[in-house]
Amino acid sequence: MFKFGVLKTDKSSKARLGRLLTPHGEISTPAFIPVGTQGTVKALCSKDLVDLDAEIILSNTYHLYLRPGDELIKELGGLHKFMNWERPILTDSGGFQVYSLAQFRRINEEGVMFQSHIDGSSHFITPEKAVEIQEFLGADIIMAFDECIPYPAEYDYCKKSTEMTLRWAERCLKAQKRDDQVLFGIVQGGMYNDLRKICAEELCNLGFSGFAIGGLSVGEPKEIMWDIADYTASILPEDKPKYLMGVGTPEDIIDGAMRGIDMFDCIIPTRQARNGSLFASTGKVVIKNSKYTRDENPVDPECDCYTCRNYSRAYLRHLFMAKEILSLRLNTIHNLHFYLNLMKRIRQAIENDSLESLVKEYKEIYGKVMC
Amino acid sequence: MFKFGVLKTDKSSKARLGRLLTPHGEISTPAFIPVGTQGTVKALCSKDLVDLDAEIILSNTYHLYLRPGDELIKELGGLHKFMNWERPILTDSGGFQVYSLAQFRRINEEGVMFQSHIDGSSHFITPEKAVEIQEFLGADIIMAFDECIPYPAEYDYCKKSTEMTLRWAERCLKAQKRDDQVLFGIVQGGMYNDLRKICAEELCNLGFSGFAIGGLSVGEPKEIMWDIADYTASILPEDKPKYLMGVGTPEDIIDGAMRGIDMFDCIIPTRQARNGSLFASTGKVVIKNSKYTRDENPVDPECDCYTCRNYSRAYLRHLFMAKEILSLRLNTIHNLHFYLNLMKRIRQAIENDSLESLVKEYKEIYGKVMC
Repeated sequence: MFKFGVLKTDKSSKARLGRLLTPHGEISTPAFIPVGTQGTVKALCSKDLVDLDAEIILSNTYHLYLRPGDELIKELGGLHKFMNWERPILTDSGGFQVYSLAQFRRINEEGVMFQSHIDGSSHFITPEKAVEIQEFLGADIIMAFDECIPYPAEYDYCKKSTEMTLRWAERCLKAQKRDDQVLFGIVQGGMYNDLRKICAEELCNLGFSGFAIGGLSVGEPKEIMWDIADYTASILPEDKPKYLMGVGTPEDIIDGAMRGIDMFDCIIPTRQARNGSLFASTGKVVIKNSKYTRDENPVDPECDCYTCRNYSRAYLRHLFMAKEILSLRLNTIHNLHFYLNLMKRIRQAIENDSLESLVKEYKEIYGKVMC
Repeated sequence: MFKFGVLKTDKSSKARLGRLLTPHGEISTPAFIPVGTQGTVKALCSKDLVDLDAEIILSNTYHLYLRPGDELIKELGGLHKFMNWERPILTDSGGFQVYSLAQFRRINEEGVMFQSHIDGSSHFITPEKAVEIQEFLGADIIMAFDECIPYPAEYDYCKKSTEMTLRWAERCLKAQKRDDQVLFGIVQGGMYNDLRKICAEELCNLGFSGFAIGGLSVGEPKEIMWDIADYTASILPEDKPKYLMGVGTPEDIIDGAMRGIDMFDCIIPTRQARNGSLFASTGKVVIKNSKYTRDENPVDPECDCYTCRNYSRAYLRHLFMAKEILSLRLNTIHNLHFYLNLMKRIRQAIENDSLESLVKEYKEIYGKVMC
């Protein structure tokens, strides 16, 4: 039911063209996964995502567990049916959100106790519970429950945490009941390559079908992030998908793809869209800028997204300044199109042995203003 | 360029089937005009409105004058182009908003001085200015600048105000430069039939091409509203469109259509959608109600709108409770479809001599819960 294959590897980098088969369809890799936290990519409906050619979306276990509840979603036929999305879904384990959103969390070997950011209610999530929730939600790809190590962190803390993450990973595998979902392990280890190595190797031995690199983009300098990501990607098995969680800017995605990363997810395109910050082939368009007041051009003259085909910068600026709801939707469509189109271009470039020139274009022309 | 024709009059009421031809297309009447205050029907794009079969929308002169400015919209090719809407548009005169939204307004014979609700800036709108703004915006149907009399108001005040509204109406006609827009007069007169009569007759003599009944639904009891609307509609010429401004509930629209009203606009379907209050053939669906938590049915099993074809009450409730942006769009699509479908059914019923049974259905089965 699941199959991952590398179709081609780039000559000048570790970038690879692949295909991931899931019960709800195929995903071409390198892939960007739009984030639909609460069972909707903010401001878009499922048809918008199909029109955007999104092949997979991510939804957050932590949020859906708290509201409307995983049991409810199971009862209603699972997340695909609930949100009317027939293509693949990936759910995270909830681990990252417990650390970043929940209050008064306490971690022990058994699991994590935390209070909901919505109503303060207390919850206890174990690795087994995280798998159960994700089985109730019914995504195609589910993630092992891990501890996301903050930055900076001492070696001893990282070592103990990583060892616990490994024990949790094993418990997740044992807890898995459904055979129509694939479980990915998450490599932790803080900013220490030796811990990353131990974690990656042990997860491999446990027999996961895919691997995420977690605990990055948590405040560390970018050089460190790439040092760790590069090393971790290099020791993960080549015949399994490699997923860099929570990354990143368009530049990051190119950098990641060149290091052999197959999957990315990030809130940047959707959140920045809602803040009026739009990606374009000429750099960033901050739509509230007064220079766009009378600008009849589309956000990006080279873009063929729905927003650019139909609306001017002047109109989008007006919608943004007037705080109109439509602004959120049109901006989100544009930014997601930019990201998904970037992935298409990366895949085509690997196919055509032209990745180097694509990288040059993105980096030299507008790489610097992308962050 | 403008033509209005009554195709058929109902046997059992004054309801009539008509067609209004404008430079941007035909409008079948009785028509409901969705309100797109700031150059967008909140949460929808122009394609959504086409998909909903909306034949005309309304935009607010007051809002667009203040932001982004009528001169800007003119420079960018007019409102149709600005918002990418190729079908007819009606703009109000700004009169009603000056009274309901602006601060520190002062009215004299020349015009109205007011302060913007956005930034407190001072503005002076005269009848000539109101026409100029609407010519800059470029709607197909524009409205004369009037004073909207509050309720309750003494006879003497109403008389003086109505006389001024008539002088302003004449000034609007004289100020009109474009010949591709049709100017409607607005009948005022407060809750006094004799003043309504004077106003209607005088507007007729001035040669307006269409007539609105203004100053209703401003706080008066519904019996009084219908008494005035009924009387005013009855004395307006039968060969010109009659437009009841700012009305109303589905029940009101049926009541209005039976009194010979051809056009309606109201924020009820769109505003109530954003508040989670949805119209259905079985009555109101207040989507946050906990009884919909596990409800897999569409909002209205008899509805074939995009929302009902694709999403359950349970999902819509979740989106509403989680304050998701998509909630606003899906709810708005549903409620506008309900209104536009009601208009289609009214028109079909006039055509098929079955208006009485349609009225019975709406009033007896769920009329009471509609308000």
